[in-house]
Amino acid sequence: MAGLFITLEGGDGAGKTTQSEMLAGWLEERGHEVVRTREPGGTTLGVELRKLLLHGGSVDPRAEALLYAADRAQHVATIVRPALERDAVVVQDRYIDSSLAYQGAGRVLNVEDVRRISAWATEELQPELTVLLDIAPEAAAARRVARGGTADRLESEATEFHQSVRDGFRALAKADPHRFLVLDATLPPEELHLQIVGRVSALLSR
Amino acid sequence: MAGLFITLEGGDGAGKTTQSEMLAGWLEERGHEVVRTREPGGTTLGVELRKLLLHGGSVDPRAEALLYAADRAQHVATIVRPALERDAVVVQDRYIDSSLAYQGAGRVLNVEDVRRISAWATEELQPELTVLLDIAPEAAAARRVARGGTADRLESEATEFHQSVRDGFRALAKADPHRFLVLDATLPPEELHLQIVGRVSALLSR
Repeated sequence: MAGLFITLEGGDGAGKTTQSEMLAGWLEERGHEVVRTREPGGTTLGVELRKLLLHGGSVDPRAEALLYAADRAQHVATIVRPALERDAVVVQDRYIDSSLAYQGAGRVLNVEDVRRISAWATEELQPELTVLLDIAPEAAAARRVARGGTADRLESEATEFHQSVRDGFRALAKADPHRFLVLDATLPPEELHLQIVGRVSALLSR
Repeated sequence: MAGLFITLEGGDGAGKTTQSEMLAGWLEERGHEVVRTREPGGTTLGVELRKLLLHGGSVDPRAEALLYAADRAQHVATIVRPALERDAVVVQDRYIDSSLAYQGAGRVLNVEDVRRISAWATEELQPELTVLLDIAPEAAAARRVARGGTADRLESEATEFHQSVRDGFRALAKADPHRFLVLDATLPPEELHLQIVGRVSALLSR
């Protein structure tokens, strides 16, 4: 497989969208085809599943994890792999690490079960770089209020939950330091962007 | 767990709905609470997923299997287990065996992977009795035309596919003869009903 698969992770309000836009612009200026996408919701099926997941009624935790995995399978098969095969750079908002941090660390499910199902869903496709935008839940919440966004189901849960998600992301990064770039998301966006393109540059010149 | 969990399996047109109705009537006459349900589509989430699965666009095989598993997780957690816990008899149209026969034998996926995901989705809940209404694909197709139903996505695929599904069901029954009751679905409905209630009677008098 040619191409380059980059994921951005971190809680809501960490700045993933901003960094994804800046990175895509930087890549396009250098002549790369960029596919910006996200989970859940990057495919037609995913849009429907996202509606069910974020605004539906009560969903059993196992059913929820399986819906995320279904979205991921569809997304990898129809968007990510075809893009990588034609040598594009895929910049994706959330991937397996989000499932592990949210479903595993934050909820009631066994994290290894969730990882195994995601691995099956994606036929083991891993990003070459995962940028973790790390931020304290209180700071992220302040940003979300500042930008005036509406609270979805996850956002309305307690700070304790968000702290557990953050701990989950940090543990994943610690276990796979070669793949992860962990950044302090309270730094200015331009500073974060420079650190990200430094790493991406190195990957592109392999 | 009290209660009794019975599933009906077989291709479309095998007569599952007729036998389910007759069995439910027989049980209710004897004072049992009966919950008649089906997969996919037995829950609010399932109704939405069923729409996606039967009438949506192209769905990746892994995504499809995961959507069926999500429906199953929700269905078991919110309908089947609560019913069994209050001592009801659950009579269900399609369960794990359908996934194994359709997704495993008929499609491109590894049948053991599909089984493992369903086992996780349901926390290993197995029916005590599975009635397999066995019928040749040609005979089932003739019935479907006779009853004037519209063809959904599965029904419009080739007879060869339906033969592969039938072989899959028969292999599952052979591997678990204690759980399965295999019946010739071309027999008169009353005859099939008698054979089914014979077995159910024995289970209820344990």
